[in-house]
Amino acid sequence: MTFLTKLQACCERSNSLLCLGLDPDLESLPDGYSRDVFGVELFNRTVIEATSDLVCAYKPNLAFYEALGIAGLRTLEATLAMIPTHVPTIADGKRGDIENTSRLYARAIFDTFGFDSATVNAYMGRDSLQPFFDWAGKGVWVVCRTSNPGAADLQALVVNSDGPPEPLWVRVLRMVQKAPSCADKGVVIGATLPEDIRTLRGMAPDMPLLIPGVGAQGGDAGPAVGASATGPVVINASRSILYQPGASDPGAAIRSAAERLRDQLNSYR
Amino acid sequence: MTFLTKLQACCERSNSLLCLGLDPDLESLPDGYSRDVFGVELFNRTVIEATSDLVCAYKPNLAFYEALGIAGLRTLEATLAMIPTHVPTIADGKRGDIENTSRLYARAIFDTFGFDSATVNAYMGRDSLQPFFDWAGKGVWVVCRTSNPGAADLQALVVNSDGPPEPLWVRVLRMVQKAPSCADKGVVIGATLPEDIRTLRGMAPDMPLLIPGVGAQGGDAGPAVGASATGPVVINASRSILYQPGASDPGAAIRSAAERLRDQLNSYR
Repeated sequence: MTFLTKLQACCERSNSLLCLGLDPDLESLPDGYSRDVFGVELFNRTVIEATSDLVCAYKPNLAFYEALGIAGLRTLEATLAMIPTHVPTIADGKRGDIENTSRLYARAIFDTFGFDSATVNAYMGRDSLQPFFDWAGKGVWVVCRTSNPGAADLQALVVNSDGPPEPLWVRVLRMVQKAPSCADKGVVIGATLPEDIRTLRGMAPDMPLLIPGVGAQGGDAGPAVGASATGPVVINASRSILYQPGASDPGAAIRSAAERLRDQLNSYR
Repeated sequence: MTFLTKLQACCERSNSLLCLGLDPDLESLPDGYSRDVFGVELFNRTVIEATSDLVCAYKPNLAFYEALGIAGLRTLEATLAMIPTHVPTIADGKRGDIENTSRLYARAIFDTFGFDSATVNAYMGRDSLQPFFDWAGKGVWVVCRTSNPGAADLQALVVNSDGPPEPLWVRVLRMVQKAPSCADKGVVIGATLPEDIRTLRGMAPDMPLLIPGVGAQGGDAGPAVGASATGPVVINASRSILYQPGASDPGAAIRSAAERLRDQLNSYR
């Protein structure tokens, strides 16, 4: 089964466009969870048990586990083992390097850890992406247009060599469209950029989109959901669901927040 | 002691601009080294014992360790512990993400693993770099202009918004120059691009440069060394030194190859 088949099956089963970021922040863990890898593992179990029928995917951000050292990466392995096999996973690591190195990153993410898909960075060009695209059955999300304050520093610059003037992120999109791929290709675009989402959809109606930035980052869910009319869309939230300060039953509070956001996203469909 | 102080002290002590990439490829290990993490650890010990007085830095490429899973990251820890404390280290991971995530990558690399410096990717803009720049005493190498075949896909595109037309990589360089930093800032530029090295030096005479691509990637050492006339330069080689097929004494062969390249680089000074 290819990544997109798995993703679409899970979207339908959960009736959900919501991807939940598994980004365990020690300082934000609820009371009763130790501020260490044991607390993180327990917390991830709480989160997954509370939400696995409400999400279309889980997206662990690799930095949160790497910052906890080797024990943190063991926790990542344990977390992946908790996720029901029908729920697809996204390794959010934004890797990218020369070809032989990218191939090793792909191996680490797809084979060694067993993720279903990965986010990657295109700055080093098409041969830095190709080893990910060569991985049959997996999914690759190329970071295209992000929603952080400095995203415009490079991504929004107008480039004009060998083609019409257009923003750099559009050039990245074209590069992804043109690349041969055995994997399923998609792109990352921030929810805070509704106009760019519309531009992208105009150019690539059926391109799978991973849209972070709903919730804590303040993105607008309407245009993000609207983009799902013509192609697969996965909308990620992390902090706004995971951390429910003062909740007496963290699992119930997380479930309730996830359900609310899932239903809100569905209301825009 | 800041990163650059440590780097320059080691350059002088070893009389060397040579940084050796510690990129253990299972398939290329010499006979007698098992094709697993034990063989990698033994091989890295051989390499470090053979070369630590000949190099100015060691640069482990994180992908090579991640591809071996958690045991591979233990091998990376063991490798770092083998490196004499006066030799600076470069974590080649090319990380970059939104600010809170980049801060966790910086913590993983600088605190958890204890590296002296790290390579980072600028595609997500200045706030994705800032957490690395905020790490006092460490070094940050921003990937600017690389030497792989697809590097030109984005890096060489001419951008013309808000400023004079110039290649994207020059814009990245300007972004690095302008960024406030507690860490020591440098950039990565490929050895296969002598004209771009000259352009860069014209704009940034004293910017520290990490120059890969000498050796297996076919880069020309002359202009790379020439750039050291006005500012710190670290020239990386990996495969061309590490793998000496048919050598009866791998340590001696590696030492001899490293010594030859060090002396060749010095001959251009």
